Amino acid sequence: MSETMKAAIFVKPGQMAVEEVPKARLEQDDDAVVRVVRACVCGSDLWYFRGLSPHPEHAQIGHESIGVVEEVGSAVTSVKSGDFVVLPFPYSCGKCPVCKAGFESVCPHGGYFGASQAEYVRVPEADGTVVKVPGSPEDYDDATLASLLTIADVMSTGYHAAVSAEVKPGDTAVVMGDGAVGLCGVLSAHMLGAKRIIAMSRHEDRAAVAREFGATDIVAERDQAAIDKVLEMTGGYGADAVLECVGSKQSFDTAIGLIRRGGVIGRVGLPHDVEISAEGTFYGNIGIKGGPAPVRHYDLQSGLLDTVVKGEINPGRVFTAEFDLDHIQEAYEAMDQRKVIKSLIRF
Amino acid sequence: MSETMKAAIFVKPGQMAVEEVPKARLEQDDDAVVRVVRACVCGSDLWYFRGLSPHPEHAQIGHESIGVVEEVGSAVTSVKSGDFVVLPFPYSCGKCPVCKAGFESVCPHGGYFGASQAEYVRVPEADGTVVKVPGSPEDYDDATLASLLTIADVMSTGYHAAVSAEVKPGDTAVVMGDGAVGLCGVLSAHMLGAKRIIAMSRHEDRAAVAREFGATDIVAERDQAAIDKVLEMTGGYGADAVLECVGSKQSFDTAIGLIRRGGVIGRVGLPHDVEISAEGTFYGNIGIKGGPAPVRHYDLQSGLLDTVVKGEINPGRVFTAEFDLDHIQEAYEAMDQRKVIKSLIRF
Repeated sequence: MSETMKAAIFVKPGQMAVEEVPKARLEQDDDAVVRVVRACVCGSDLWYFRGLSPHPEHAQIGHESIGVVEEVGSAVTSVKSGDFVVLPFPYSCGKCPVCKAGFESVCPHGGYFGASQAEYVRVPEADGTVVKVPGSPEDYDDATLASLLTIADVMSTGYHAAVSAEVKPGDTAVVMGDGAVGLCGVLSAHMLGAKRIIAMSRHEDRAAVAREFGATDIVAERDQAAIDKVLEMTGGYGADAVLECVGSKQSFDTAIGLIRRGGVIGRVGLPHDVEISAEGTFYGNIGIKGGPAPVRHYDLQSGLLDTVVKGEINPGRVFTAEFDLDHIQEAYEAMDQRKVIKSLIRF
Repeated sequence: MSETMKAAIFVKPGQMAVEEVPKARLEQDDDAVVRVVRACVCGSDLWYFRGLSPHPEHAQIGHESIGVVEEVGSAVTSVKSGDFVVLPFPYSCGKCPVCKAGFESVCPHGGYFGASQAEYVRVPEADGTVVKVPGSPEDYDDATLASLLTIADVMSTGYHAAVSAEVKPGDTAVVMGDGAVGLCGVLSAHMLGAKRIIAMSRHEDRAAVAREFGATDIVAERDQAAIDKVLEMTGGYGADAVLECVGSKQSFDTAIGLIRRGGVIGRVGLPHDVEISAEGTFYGNIGIKGGPAPVRHYDLQSGLLDTVVKGEINPGRVFTAEFDLDHIQEAYEAMDQRKVIKSLIRF
């Protein structure tokens, strides 16, 4: 009889379960298997939980985790059993022109993890995917482990929003969305030198983290009122950079309304019914950039891993509740009901 | 009786005229009046000539010129009577956050010239608009004067396409459009270090200039055949950067089809019926940037003026025919019938 492991199961919208499933195992020479130490629930998982986006029923789920390499395939050279790694939400070959250009998240030979809320995860293309962390999990405190977990997705995604929006020192940046990604966007805009960071938030717990991460102003208004407010704050010219971390038509249209001419909207929210006006953006010289975040590029080439390891940033603050895998239903519900910003799963 | 001057008149689609009109004069303290030395016909003027875009009938036209300052208003400090200047197609205040960010072409206090095919031009906001050229027109040969004229619009616009597309040393860049802007896009991609420059052209005269400007490959195919060809040339991955210098739906869709994931489309063709898929661009991490070119920024801050004055580039090669103002009809017709790439008007 084959080995089993515990895994979160998406039963149907609104209903999660934990079941014994076949243990993740090597399937290809370039695979690794990782024993998960921390995982978490993503805002995008909530789209499934809320029944707003389709997800296979009675299937595994999850794409954010950190852990320890259990075993590697014969072709894997960059990590070995016992190594501590971050698993970026995309896996990637690491060798093609798309990866070399720093866009591993859209590597045509790669894909996305979808079974990371589990005791073990199979990692395809391990050499092009994993981010090796110095030492072992025991060398880090809980806060640092939480921050390491954020550079599997949420922090790297916020960073992608800021980089895509071309945030420069001295800029006024607006962050649309006060979820965990938006908050990490605030932190990223701060890291890139934005002088004024306007966070759009109407939840005091989130606004508090936004301020801690570097937000200088909180705007609770929405739609035209939000646009008017930001225009008023910027002498009528609009914000130099906008980090669009929601993906709704409402959020995108607001971003268009409040960006300065010549500015760039960095978008990381999965688009839902968003329309981009070819004329409106053209005649304002407004740039649109972004997509799934190239996590590995930012972790290694842009130094997010080092910055977290040295304790210079604490993006793990977005986790405001912790659950074990057996309480995965509660972890989803707490986020769905906005009782927590983001739920961490401890193994 | 007030003074008059000769000016090109857009009578109606297909019909130009030259008439005596009141001479351009100072209207505001910050105006200048410039005596035109060279002007030209723009691809965008052809949209009017062909009846594809509306233009007031029996009205002046033109937005590209170089000349000598005739007189300045009392508030103008940067130029004086007798100075040689390039007039960028947009006028701009030069002082607001949009101008300071390098986007004078979309200055909310500015606008676009519309009467430059004439003996004299009124220049609003002269201090924020003109690009002062060392010496006087007599100090330059015809070829250099032609190149100086290109940095009023066409060369700066090609450069904006390349900068917006984020062309980097070593890149493979595709240039959509073999009109004068596209050809200047080829030259600009070359200046920014692109290693391979694929020009889309099916006209031998234009392909020849493209090669002279640095194109390494000419692709005559269109639509899916063009996409297939570029994918084949790039190992299936697509081009690192695309300069979209047409503005049609056909051209934009081709650009989307052949760009590498993570690449940026720099667009300078005025969009006509272009649709941008919010999802398609997002999941490919494809950026879209561009708009009206901030001519003054590129001429002064990016050094196009210096480069032309030193004779290091010869973008004036896009002018393949020369007319006097009395033959403005012929100047338009020659471009409309593709007998010439771009028509220069000598005064």
